[in-house]
Amino acid sequence: MIGSTISWLLAQEPTLQELQDQINDLSAKQVLDSTVLGEFYYFFTVAILWLAHVGFMAYEGGASRRKNVMSTAMKNILTIAVVTPTFYYFGWYIYTCFGQGLIPYGPGETAFGGFQGGFCATGWPWSDNLGPNFGDHITGVFWAIFLLFSWTTASILSGAIIERVRLSAFLILGTILGSVIWILDASWGWSPYGFLPLRWGFHDTIASLVVHGVAGAFALGVLVNLGPRIGKYTADGLARSFRGHNTHLTLMGLLLIFVGFYGFYAGCLAISSLTFPGWYNIYFSPATLSSITYAITIGFAGGFTGGYFASRGDPFWTLSGGLAGVISVSAGADVYAPSLVWLISISGGAIVVYAGNFIEQKLRIDDAVGAVAVHGVAGFYGPLAVGLFASGYPTGLNNVPVTLQGQLMGMLIFLPLGFFGGYIPAWILKQFNLLRVPPEVELEGLDLAEYGVDFYPEFERATEQIVLPTGETVDAEPVLLEAFRGART
Amino acid sequence: MIGSTISWLLAQEPTLQELQDQINDLSAKQVLDSTVLGEFYYFFTVAILWLAHVGFMAYEGGASRRKNVMSTAMKNILTIAVVTPTFYYFGWYIYTCFGQGLIPYGPGETAFGGFQGGFCATGWPWSDNLGPNFGDHITGVFWAIFLLFSWTTASILSGAIIERVRLSAFLILGTILGSVIWILDASWGWSPYGFLPLRWGFHDTIASLVVHGVAGAFALGVLVNLGPRIGKYTADGLARSFRGHNTHLTLMGLLLIFVGFYGFYAGCLAISSLTFPGWYNIYFSPATLSSITYAITIGFAGGFTGGYFASRGDPFWTLSGGLAGVISVSAGADVYAPSLVWLISISGGAIVVYAGNFIEQKLRIDDAVGAVAVHGVAGFYGPLAVGLFASGYPTGLNNVPVTLQGQLMGMLIFLPLGFFGGYIPAWILKQFNLLRVPPEVELEGLDLAEYGVDFYPEFERATEQIVLPTGETVDAEPVLLEAFRGART
Amino acid sequence: MIGSTISWLLAQEPTLQELQDQINDLSAKQVLDSTVLGEFYYFFTVAILWLAHVGFMAYEGGASRRKNVMSTAMKNILTIAVVTPTFYYFGWYIYTCFGQGLIPYGPGETAFGGFQGGFCATGWPWSDNLGPNFGDHITGVFWAIFLLFSWTTASILSGAIIERVRLSAFLILGTILGSVIWILDASWGWSPYGFLPLRWGFHDTIASLVVHGVAGAFALGVLVNLGPRIGKYTADGLARSFRGHNTHLTLMGLLLIFVGFYGFYAGCLAISSLTFPGWYNIYFSPATLSSITYAITIGFAGGFTGGYFASRGDPFWTLSGGLAGVISVSAGADVYAPSLVWLISISGGAIVVYAGNFIEQKLRIDDAVGAVAVHGVAGFYGPLAVGLFASGYPTGLNNVPVTLQGQLMGMLIFLPLGFFGGYIPAWILKQFNLLRVPPEVELEGLDLAEYGVDFYPEFERATEQIVLPTGETVDAEPVLLEAFRGART
Repeated sequence: MIGSTISWLLAQEPTLQELQDQINDLSAKQVLDSTVLGEFYYFFTVAILWLAHVGFMAYEGGASRRKNVMSTAMKNILTIAVVTPTFYYFGWYIYTCFGQGLIPYGPGETAFGGFQGGFCATGWPWSDNLGPNFGDHITGVFWAIFLLFSWTTASILSGAIIERVRLSAFLILGTILGSVIWILDASWGWSPYGFLPLRWGFHDTIASLVVHGVAGAFALGVLVNLGPRIGKYTADGLARSFRGHNTHLTLMGLLLIFVGFYGFYAGCLAISSLTFPGWYNIYFSPATLSSITYAITIGFAGGFTGGYFASRGDPFWTLSGGLAGVISVSAGADVYAPSLVWLISISGGAIVVYAGNFIEQKLRIDDAVGAVAVHGVAGFYGPLAVGLFASGYPTGLNNVPVTLQGQLMGMLIFLPLGFFGGYIPAWILKQFNLLRVPPEVELEGLDLAEYGVDFYPEFERATEQIVLPTGETVDAEPVLLEAFRGART
Repeated sequence: MIGSTISWLLAQEPTLQELQDQINDLSAKQVLDSTVLGEFYYFFTVAILWLAHVGFMAYEGGASRRKNVMSTAMKNILTIAVVTPTFYYFGWYIYTCFGQGLIPYGPGETAFGGFQGGFCATGWPWSDNLGPNFGDHITGVFWAIFLLFSWTTASILSGAIIERVRLSAFLILGTILGSVIWILDASWGWSPYGFLPLRWGFHDTIASLVVHGVAGAFALGVLVNLGPRIGKYTADGLARSFRGHNTHLTLMGLLLIFVGFYGFYAGCLAISSLTFPGWYNIYFSPATLSSITYAITIGFAGGFTGGYFASRGDPFWTLSGGLAGVISVSAGADVYAPSLVWLISISGGAIVVYAGNFIEQKLRIDDAVGAVAVHGVAGFYGPLAVGLFASGYPTGLNNVPVTLQGQLMGMLIFLPLGFFGGYIPAWILKQFNLLRVPPEVELEGLDLAEYGVDFYPEFERATEQIVLPTGETVDAEPVLLEAFRGART
Repeated sequence: MIGSTISWLLAQEPTLQELQDQINDLSAKQVLDSTVLGEFYYFFTVAILWLAHVGFMAYEGGASRRKNVMSTAMKNILTIAVVTPTFYYFGWYIYTCFGQGLIPYGPGETAFGGFQGGFCATGWPWSDNLGPNFGDHITGVFWAIFLLFSWTTASILSGAIIERVRLSAFLILGTILGSVIWILDASWGWSPYGFLPLRWGFHDTIASLVVHGVAGAFALGVLVNLGPRIGKYTADGLARSFRGHNTHLTLMGLLLIFVGFYGFYAGCLAISSLTFPGWYNIYFSPATLSSITYAITIGFAGGFTGGYFASRGDPFWTLSGGLAGVISVSAGADVYAPSLVWLISISGGAIVVYAGNFIEQKLRIDDAVGAVAVHGVAGFYGPLAVGLFASGYPTGLNNVPVTLQGQLMGMLIFLPLGFFGGYIPAWILKQFNLLRVPPEVELEGLDLAEYGVDFYPEFERATEQIVLPTGETVDAEPVLLEAFRGART
């Protein structure tokens, strides 16, 4: 229509200025169109990533015992209720202003050619960017992706501590992780203005460490204080196993998390459709969406393979291996060749099985879904692999080459940040007896205490069972009662 | 490639006309590219919104008693079978031609500068637009979004009336709601050519009232005729509670509905990537996708919070609160600041809990999933909030400012349209004894009557239970049998 | 920003060459923007299509008996583990190089104006295209879609053979189907360079036959060797019925498959946003996304209707009818008018119910989920319908008109390719006793043999039941034991 109007207008020969005006108009439209494309892109990224949160709820609920299903699921719902406003009111500000460490940049200050200062000014909740604004098409959708990453970190913690944590304690810890700790680490190591990429060439493109690793370390810090579920360990420290009440739904949840991961991957790229090559990683180094598609898809395949063999075919660990495989390759997903992805993800899927057993049996830490292994260990393995396999790749605004030292630097900074970020508030909650439900409640089931009912009212209940360290499955009641007496005294 | 060909062709200096031709070519391609972007956008919106229908099936099935799970689920499937062709053959025509009231505009007629007449001509099922057509990239995908909204309205009704409605009666009522009533209200109040925005500045951007409110009112009109499930009320009119057979799956269904809501939100904007600001609301007032992202995401968070506190932590109502929260802010999602969204959604999430209790206990209307409260009450609260908090905002082709009166006008028109739209056909069906299954069937369970089997053949069945008005949970059988005898006499 | 810079630079009148440079720059940006749009499009197509694989796992698991749920689900997970690397290392090469039959084109060879040769060069796993590459935005995402189609074919097989196939045998057969057979047929009949469209005008736009039909024929070839489950047939050859342990989850899985189908449909178009009409089907004939939206959506509605009436309201067959309806119209989804879609999909939904009964009762082939009927029969019906209803439509690079003969030609080639593609390897596996689990394992349940446990530990188990040919439901144990004795002797 525009074309035909123009040709009618210009039956006579155009002037130079008329042509220039038309070109300016086309150029302005091109910029708007590209902006709308980016806005659309991030919005759907959010929708896909939401599926991971459907998945977390199905997965954790299925992995809990029947007596705890609803208490487990409610954690996932209320994560959204508490992390969303806190991330809006201060989490986003932390991301925009803390890139240089623990001192925020004020809106008027500048660093790195003014970038950081300008970015910082956009992070206050009363900023024009954090609300309806015809001139800003990106902040809202981009903020939403970061928010969903925040939910993700809290959900990683959530699974590890089910069946004995107080709901209120989880909500406090999840808020600290989702709206402070992870977003602080992101401003350091997962932002174009963070000191780790700018000075050390730290490279963690799809957030292996800054999301998964740190959340896993945080969960470890909490678990040390929280302690194992009643009956998890024998008097000799050997591990018993609880059995999830619906493994089929747990697998379905994991598969939904995998779909959500495509949103996670997409959300880690900056789209810029008018500047070659059209995409950037979070450090503003060039990238393409097409190449990370190999990484995520082959990463799942390799991870299943590694998990399957390392666990000798256990369904839960085979699927968790897929998660670990992808997390293992995420840090370098923009630079790896597919065959390298396959090998790293196989190894990552296998490593977390061994790590999970080590944590459960040697460290005697009761992580209900293996989150410390799957997210934490694979999350730290990710950037290490980049240091080993992609050294020299120039990263970030300063084009600092990736080095093993730089990657280790990031790991060394984020391990204590994550661990003590979880350890300290959990320790404080524990001192006030606010961390864990009373042992009577844990024994009866949290649902009975909280809601007074069983949530499968028309399904006859079979006696709860427990797997002994010998592999034998027995009635749980006498075992738990004995352990309960031990816990009380 | 095009660029390099051009530069080769033009090693010698171009003429003005050659430049003009190139500009015309670029401009035409820009228009096509923008059109394809829009087509793509709506297509994925449909896919995301489909997830809500997966969710409705999981949610309603889980909320039913075990004896009714398949009869409940089949309603959701067959909704698609009946609403789709009827919406194709006359629903879309109603949308395009009834904007001025109850008299359609013929294709040749014009109103409002010719817009309405031209739009009307595109709505006949034999129109070029309703079929493959290389020149029309938008009607197919846009029609599909409206269709999925139609399914949504029928699904809102579906949940309220489970466990005793006849399948055939539901399909008739769902068709009336999905292919007539709601789309008629949309042509009045949710179209650039509707009389409500054009004359009254009525503003309901993401369809709080025109989808949810009207469907809730329709459901209320049906429920009044349908009556409560056997055993729902004591002889004194106190409410007993039935218990869904799988609340975990109900929550999972609700979460999928929430994901689908991102498609719902996206589908309520008109994309126009070459005209500032790139997006319009359904009234052709400027908007951005980025800003409604705050509204939907914070709306869930606030709604969970309101629902949680008002219901004192009940899982079903906490999640339903999230739905209510979003519906409460949908009408003004394009204009609200995020903090306002949070406050309105908290209040909306809380209000529907009280409303749900009022409907159940005072009005003695047995709405199995609280649809009248969640969709109806929040759906009417949405445009009211716009009148209270966003008065003066210019809306629609005529830029009529939002007023409280205008919003009330819309509510006053849509309340009887929805309510009697449901009441009258349900009353007629009732006269012919076609509305409700026989009490014997209801008591035994619809699945046994329809399919002759229980759908969990390998799970031992526990006795059905019922919660008395005192809160005590007892065996349902004697209670239901007594009520059944009452129902028969 | 670009616009304002330009206007500042050009306060004085521009020269012809300056204008030309600006036009070249705009044109190059337009090409990049369009490429990024396509990359984004396919990426999200992959994410949506992933949902089908969540669905397959839920659906097959729910359709199995309780004793086989985890063994069934693990097939779906490990499909991803084995098909992904094999498709990467040789499946994609087959697609790019075997268009002319069984002899590959080497990178240096040319055919059809050089197209085939050039395409072939991109298919080696060490090609620049199969890895990160700033100059190639499409191969990675396009490869991923084809990969997910490969998973789909393997999943179609997967469902048919549950409850008695060995996991290792399935993985071998699934790899042959997913990484060899289907992709070979795709290179022949579902590529612009395939001999079937180039010479015969073969038209199967959304892969009715090349994905579903061939996978169904393959499954049939396997089933003939695999044999029915113990107890499926009486000594007189009458069919008994097993009952899935969770039909609600099976329906939910099917609905997720339906959502995934939107990704399947989207992935079958080539997006080209700068060339009218913006989209092409896989043969490079013009198409639009908008028009196929009618086909998929109305196809589900019609299929439910046909399935519902033909099966007299059976839930499983009503939903399977939806799948069959869509598959029936897929081959011509780009050219059919919506009313034609509705009629064909109603007939397709009905036909597969009759076909399913015929296969089960007359052919005495035990297809656990009716995959041969739903995918196979509807998959062959699809291109037949194009021959009947859309003859004359010009297809492909050579614009050969669709003919009934051409469609039959494709069907005649693909039937033996699929059937013997499955029959031969299954026959070989059978000779080495590697195809089927021992009858003792089948009787006890594969989960007990593989994992030693039941996967619903807290739900009391009801005796397994079986439906006799008379329709009566009885305890399965004596029936199965008697059949087991027969199987052993």
